[in-house]
Amino acid sequence: MVTGGAGFVGSHLVDRLMLMGHQVLVIDNYFTGKKWNIQQWIGHPNFEVIRHDVVDHIAAEVDEIYHLASPASPPHYQENPTKTIKTNVMGTINILGLAKRVKAKVLLASTSEVYGDPEIHPQTEDYWGHVNPIGPRACYDEGKRVAETLMYSYQTQQGVDIRVARIFNTFGPRMNLNDGRVVSNFIIQSLQNKNLTIYGDGSQTRSFQFVHDLVNGLIKLMNSNYSMPVNIGNPREFTILEFAKMIKEKTGTSGKIIHQPGAIDDPRRRRPDITVAQEKIGWHPSYSVEKGLDETIAFFKLHLV
Amino acid sequence: MVTGGAGFVGSHLVDRLMLMGHQVLVIDNYFTGKKWNIQQWIGHPNFEVIRHDVVDHIAAEVDEIYHLASPASPPHYQENPTKTIKTNVMGTINILGLAKRVKAKVLLASTSEVYGDPEIHPQTEDYWGHVNPIGPRACYDEGKRVAETLMYSYQTQQGVDIRVARIFNTFGPRMNLNDGRVVSNFIIQSLQNKNLTIYGDGSQTRSFQFVHDLVNGLIKLMNSNYSMPVNIGNPREFTILEFAKMIKEKTGTSGKIIHQPGAIDDPRRRRPDITVAQEKIGWHPSYSVEKGLDETIAFFKLHLV
Ligand SMILES: NC(=O)c1ccc[n+]([C@@H]2O[C@H](COP(=O)([O-])OP(=O)(O)OC[C@H]3O[C@@H](n4cnc5c(N)ncnc54)[C@H](O)[C@@H]3O)[C@@H](O)[C@H]2O)c1
Ligand SMILES: NC(=O)c1ccc[n+]([C@@H]2O[C@H](COP(=O)([O-])OP(=O)(O)OC[C@H]3O[C@@H](n4cnc5c(N)ncnc54)[C@H](O)[C@@H]3O)[C@@H](O)[C@H]2O)c1
Ligand SMILES: O=c1ccn([C@@H]2O[C@H](COP(=O)(O)OP(=O)(O)O)[C@@H](O)[C@H]2O)c(=O)[nH]1
Ligand SMILES: O=c1ccn([C@@H]2O[C@H](COP(=O)(O)OP(=O)(O)O)[C@@H](O)[C@H]2O)c(=O)[nH]1
Ligand SMILES: O=c1ccn([C@@H]2O[C@H](COP(=O)(O)OP(=O)(O)O)[C@@H](O)[C@H]2O)c(=O)[nH]1
Ligand SMILES: O=c1ccn([C@@H]2O[C@H](COP(=O)(O)OP(=O)(O)O)[C@@H](O)[C@H]2O)c(=O)[nH]1
Repeated sequence: MVTGGAGFVGSHLVDRLMLMGHQVLVIDNYFTGKKWNIQQWIGHPNFEVIRHDVVDHIAAEVDEIYHLASPASPPHYQENPTKTIKTNVMGTINILGLAKRVKAKVLLASTSEVYGDPEIHPQTEDYWGHVNPIGPRACYDEGKRVAETLMYSYQTQQGVDIRVARIFNTFGPRMNLNDGRVVSNFIIQSLQNKNLTIYGDGSQTRSFQFVHDLVNGLIKLMNSNYSMPVNIGNPREFTILEFAKMIKEKTGTSGKIIHQPGAIDDPRRRRPDITVAQEKIGWHPSYSVEKGLDETIAFFKLHLV
Repeated sequence: MVTGGAGFVGSHLVDRLMLMGHQVLVIDNYFTGKKWNIQQWIGHPNFEVIRHDVVDHIAAEVDEIYHLASPASPPHYQENPTKTIKTNVMGTINILGLAKRVKAKVLLASTSEVYGDPEIHPQTEDYWGHVNPIGPRACYDEGKRVAETLMYSYQTQQGVDIRVARIFNTFGPRMNLNDGRVVSNFIIQSLQNKNLTIYGDGSQTRSFQFVHDLVNGLIKLMNSNYSMPVNIGNPREFTILEFAKMIKEKTGTSGKIIHQPGAIDDPRRRRPDITVAQEKIGWHPSYSVEKGLDETIAFFKLHLV
């Protein structure tokens, strides 16, 4: 089972699981996902998709659950903060209740946002984070932190077999064209010869991984027997300004780089320490950011009409 | 309306509101509260109590809501972490939904635990906190942090008029005799001439306020027009060892001070900076810890039979 399987990351995970011969059940309410992302499997005997909100009771018999259902980009998750919290809290409780009943393994797609605006760099899994509980990002950051809390509660109280992936910024084909994240914004702006909008001075950093690396990591983590949180991300760090320049160059756009007001509580730096992933689940990224960007730009060219 | 009104703090708040001539409606599921705490008002025409769980839809027409429903002591809130999270998340959503519908003011009883094991001392309201999202205290700490997130979401999205009190350790008559907190443990151990159990070396600190001071603070905050978080606590700081000695002396017990293993993720230091409370709502504590302890010890003597 893949919740949020019609989304960007979920649909790539579904592709891989289907190609591996699994029976796949997708649960999605299409809030940010699209049926188009999984249409290639509709009608396949191993595949099923149900339109369902994870906030409501879930009925299914499954062995493994990848729990990805949650809006992921700031404009989406800030649109209805209460709903974001309900999805992460009630959704995760329902998935854990289901997992308990059917004795399934559950993997939670958590996020580097649990570290907030980090004071240690790069971020290791034992860092407790630096999150503003009453800021505009809190509904997502705190929602995911509580989702993790719930995972470990069900592990301790109910013996549920859990995995927790802390996912760092990810990009690739099928990213939501208008989800407002930096990769899609810069590529679309470039392809339309519009200006590339940097929020703030562009000195803030992010580390970007290609989606196929992430999918590898999620599957490796599920199949490992390591149940503490694991960072999944590419440790190569860019300032947003460097990143804008790179996309400008790759696309040959005539758009210019412009600066807009910085976002509130925008993390200053972000880079994963992936020692745990390497040592415990034998994973490290293998796509270069350049190669990933080429594929992503090609995808956007095809779909921007 | 007072949720959690049959509890320790809630029942003192109810006393004060009744004496001020208000109509008071208590909502409580008696998880840690007792009818005994509010029996003095049962039958009074201005008073009503409903056995109800705040996790479920709440029907009522009210002007002001003091939202206190939540277990508060570590042994209680760790007994069922998922329930603790549900109470704080779904309970707060329901209260805010109700407040939105009837246009009531809502005050959330938040906690100094949102600061976790703090790295700054004393704690000011703008500190983002240092909380382990996957530790044994997380269900309470993160539950309250999300409750705050929800308060500010409903303020921004729905225009609900909110107040957020960050309450520091509080003691007084009607504390749950067996709730495992340090004040009740030390007093009961002393009165029974048993040993006083210090967890760890006793160098960790806490600041203790008497419950009547807290009740003053909550009412002042509700009647103010300040909607950002406000610390309510007594800034006088004790090490747990000093505190044990003080209670030993006051009770003249023959019990000795002994050390037991420290608690996991036990905050090392805790003391409120109450500048905001003083400047914005004109509040500061007026009971000395000594006077409060005398009243509390007298109460325990009466009820320990
Ligand atoms: N993409 C990243 O950079 C990134 C980084 C960190 C974590 N994550 C996490 O990975 C997961 C997938 O992210 P994504 O980038 O694919 O986002 P996405 O928005 O493309 O996908 C999320 C999917 O969840 C579905 N969904 C949302 N709320 C739901 C609900 N209540 N019930 C059922 N389905 C619901 C959406 O319709 C969508 O299909 C999320 O949990 C996200 O928090 C992503
Ligand atoms: N006492 C302190 O030192 C302290 C410190 C910080 C914050 N607080 C907060 O103050 C509030 C009151 O604490 P207290 O010390 O009086 O604790 P308490 O346990 O005595 O009171 C809590 C009350 O809430 C009720 N309750 C719990 N879950 C409920 C639910 N799901 N539905 C309805 N009622 C429910 C309990 O039955 C009880 O009457 C709590 O929100 C607590 O987090 C207390
Ligand atoms: O197959 C199932 C089993 C449980 N749940 C939900 O999971 C949550 C937690 O279930 P659990 O059994 O842990 O607790 P309880 O039912 O006691 O709340 C509940 O809201 C259930 O509705 C679900 O959605 N599908
Ligand atoms: O058009 C944009 C979109 C985002 N950003 C910045 O790029 C970084 C990454 O933003 P994104 O929303 O992609 O993800 P986040 O890591 O903040 O969740 C942040 O510093 C944003 O302020 C930007 O400069 N221009
Ligand atoms: O008088 C009321 C009004 C609302 N709610 C609950 O408050 C929550 C949030 O209500 P809101 O109207 O904000 O959102 P929605 O109903 O759209 O979820 C819902 O679960 C309602 O059941 C309640 O308990 N009492
Ligand atoms: O019998 C006890 C109970 C508590 N404590 C310590 O006293 C402090 C306050 O504990 P309490 O549970 O009262 O409240 P907290 O502030 O930790 O929520 C903590 O450092 C506890 O480890 C102790 O030494 N002995």
